Amino acid sequence: MSILWESRFALRTQWVTSSLIRELLKLTQKPEVISFAGGLPAAEYFPVERFQDACQRVLANQAHQALQYSTTEGYPPLREFIAERLCTQGVCVGPENVLITSGSQQALSMLGALLINPGDRVLVEEPTYLGALQAFSLYQASYVGVPTDSDGICTEMLPEALRHGPKFMYILPNFQNPAGVTLSAERRIELTRLAHEHGIPIVEDDPYGALRFEGEDMRPLVAVDAELTGGVHEAYTGNVIVLGTFSKTLAPGLRIAWIVAPRQVIAKLTQIKQGLDLHTSTFNQMVIYEAAKDGFIDEHVDRLRHVYRRRRDAMLAALDRYAPPEMTWTQPQGGLFLWLQLPAGVAERAAFDLAIEKNVAFVPGSAFFARPDSPPTARLNFSCMDEERIVEGIRRLCGVIQDMQAKRNGDAPNRAE
Amino acid sequence: MSILWESRFALRTQWVTSSLIRELLKLTQKPEVISFAGGLPAAEYFPVERFQDACQRVLANQAHQALQYSTTEGYPPLREFIAERLCTQGVCVGPENVLITSGSQQALSMLGALLINPGDRVLVEEPTYLGALQAFSLYQASYVGVPTDSDGICTEMLPEALRHGPKFMYILPNFQNPAGVTLSAERRIELTRLAHEHGIPIVEDDPYGALRFEGEDMRPLVAVDAELTGGVHEAYTGNVIVLGTFSKTLAPGLRIAWIVAPRQVIAKLTQIKQGLDLHTSTFNQMVIYEAAKDGFIDEHVDRLRHVYRRRRDAMLAALDRYAPPEMTWTQPQGGLFLWLQLPAGVAERAAFDLAIEKNVAFVPGSAFFARPDSPPTARLNFSCMDEERIVEGIRRLCGVIQDMQAKRNGDAPNRAE
Repeated sequence: MSILWESRFALRTQWVTSSLIRELLKLTQKPEVISFAGGLPAAEYFPVERFQDACQRVLANQAHQALQYSTTEGYPPLREFIAERLCTQGVCVGPENVLITSGSQQALSMLGALLINPGDRVLVEEPTYLGALQAFSLYQASYVGVPTDSDGICTEMLPEALRHGPKFMYILPNFQNPAGVTLSAERRIELTRLAHEHGIPIVEDDPYGALRFEGEDMRPLVAVDAELTGGVHEAYTGNVIVLGTFSKTLAPGLRIAWIVAPRQVIAKLTQIKQGLDLHTSTFNQMVIYEAAKDGFIDEHVDRLRHVYRRRRDAMLAALDRYAPPEMTWTQPQGGLFLWLQLPAGVAERAAFDLAIEKNVAFVPGSAFFARPDSPPTARLNFSCMDEERIVEGIRRLCGVIQDMQAKRNGDAPNRAE
Repeated sequence: MSILWESRFALRTQWVTSSLIRELLKLTQKPEVISFAGGLPAAEYFPVERFQDACQRVLANQAHQALQYSTTEGYPPLREFIAERLCTQGVCVGPENVLITSGSQQALSMLGALLINPGDRVLVEEPTYLGALQAFSLYQASYVGVPTDSDGICTEMLPEALRHGPKFMYILPNFQNPAGVTLSAERRIELTRLAHEHGIPIVEDDPYGALRFEGEDMRPLVAVDAELTGGVHEAYTGNVIVLGTFSKTLAPGLRIAWIVAPRQVIAKLTQIKQGLDLHTSTFNQMVIYEAAKDGFIDEHVDRLRHVYRRRRDAMLAALDRYAPPEMTWTQPQGGLFLWLQLPAGVAERAAFDLAIEKNVAFVPGSAFFARPDSPPTARLNFSCMDEERIVEGIRRLCGVIQDMQAKRNGDAPNRAE
């Protein structure tokens, strides 16, 4: 006779379920599957030697500090490093505006704890990052979705969406996960202006901003807002909370990310984090700082940009070559992902199942929508395999879609595949 | 014109405030203060060389895995290692019963998310671990306190306390933080029996169990429960969720801890953790495993036990020598803490302020009570300084208390002090 556990679980756990992505990813892990489903950086480009040196230095010179408990806010030199880099983008922030988190997922979860009462609405892009939906749903959020196009969230639809009274807006401005699109300069201004007018916070999630392959860097929303709210030269007190991470620029396995926000927000988040996990690993913060400093992170990101650009180019070229008619896709200028619009009548889940049979995988796009009736779409990752494999995977995937179209049209399946 | 942040914060943040301990600890950080206020392990005994080797091995042989994203449940060899060690204590668990967490504080917070609806009651020892109160309060818990004595929680008072309908019981059975007391064998049986009878989960938090200085190891509550519920030889499905950590046995700075529980609990906690921080640092899990394995952790804990025992002995001897009449204290058989009952009429906060003036610090006991009207008490840590400093600190502290008693009795202050 054991406990009736279900009777003891809290109400919020009904909003927490195993993600579709997670269950599907299990199917993609066979070595023969070419998987575009993950969101992994390229492991073969991790700066392993730099981390070896960093670990060695930290344990030789600062072991007692690195292995001990530390403050909730984070390692001061790392906070300073992050603040200085954001300052160069036109926002006046100092280390007191920075809180170190255990990955950006923790930052999302902490913002859920800070801002969401059960039932509160969060304004999200359609599609949006699946992990954010999971983080916010633990706090029983509901959602207001706003469509995106190739210039990011459609700001002309914001005034209507804001009438739902969202608690905050969650925006991925650069090379968005999953769609790979980037918010245009005009829309950045319009979005920030509307947020300001309505008194609504913006959570700006920017894990990929440094990974731009072409075109000019765009101003972060926080910098646009700083100009509006007077935070360019004086301490920033505006409406934007920024999330950043070392997961895509150095390595995700150390789980080091950050939140930049006005001081009163950092103060409350620090109290929340104290209850959540006391602090992020002291050792990892020091190792990341040692690895990133003295310009290394910029040199390393330069290398990554070249690698990921080649991989994106390979994927775009293969799509141009193999894609059946009626299939369209985004043209990401950076980041890790590209987004497919499947041809009308091709169901994404059926496409997934057939693709797995042909040893190629993607994430069905519905995972990235807060609403049930999403269009048939797919997220493809191009960062974690070489060009040859990308081309072969796209060839297989396009064959699957073509077969489905042929079947739908009553033709014989494409035997060449 | 910036956002009215206070209007945007969620209701739960009203339960999250800066802890008294945190504010007071700032006063204790001057180098001239002998601080018994922290809860730090002895940094000079961190196994630095072992960690250097472990980092080197992991980055030389498994860097791509160590620096990459990984599964939410944790690093399989580490989960296996933890399960095997608990099996030797009489509970049938496997790696599937183990979830790795980012420190035990995260485990507490995850259990809050799993079990606590706003307003739900948690049954706690009086006094209890401050960090647990912080973790649970984020989920708007209220509390039912049950007194403890030198044998731990007073089980004869449990039937009455259970009439409040607590959602679960939170118990620190070994060398409890803050009181340093250990739950007796008889009470372990009685507590477990009552939990079973009422269908109420027990959260068994055991960060210090390995740090026993004398006497025999006690059976964990989960083992007592396994005997009741048939989980000794068949997969454990009982009422106890166990928390353990490497923070006190190897080092806290890596933030590696664990939850052991029945499979359905682990499954739901895994979904929760996915939203909270995806997973605990892959690298740190691998480094901890490499450091702990092949018997090293037991050899190292043996060293710590000798060091901490000497420090406890020094504190007890100094109290015997310097303590004024009417002051009593616990006799911890292990762990990091000892608990003082201040003489009647000596207010703990006034004692703290005077102690700081004399350059000695402790944590006022009220921080460890969920109710406002606690008796004047103090938590003293003996793990993180050498014996000479401990003796000098106790001499100063006892002088302060003696002065307060003298003043209360209208005598002249003790000029020898």
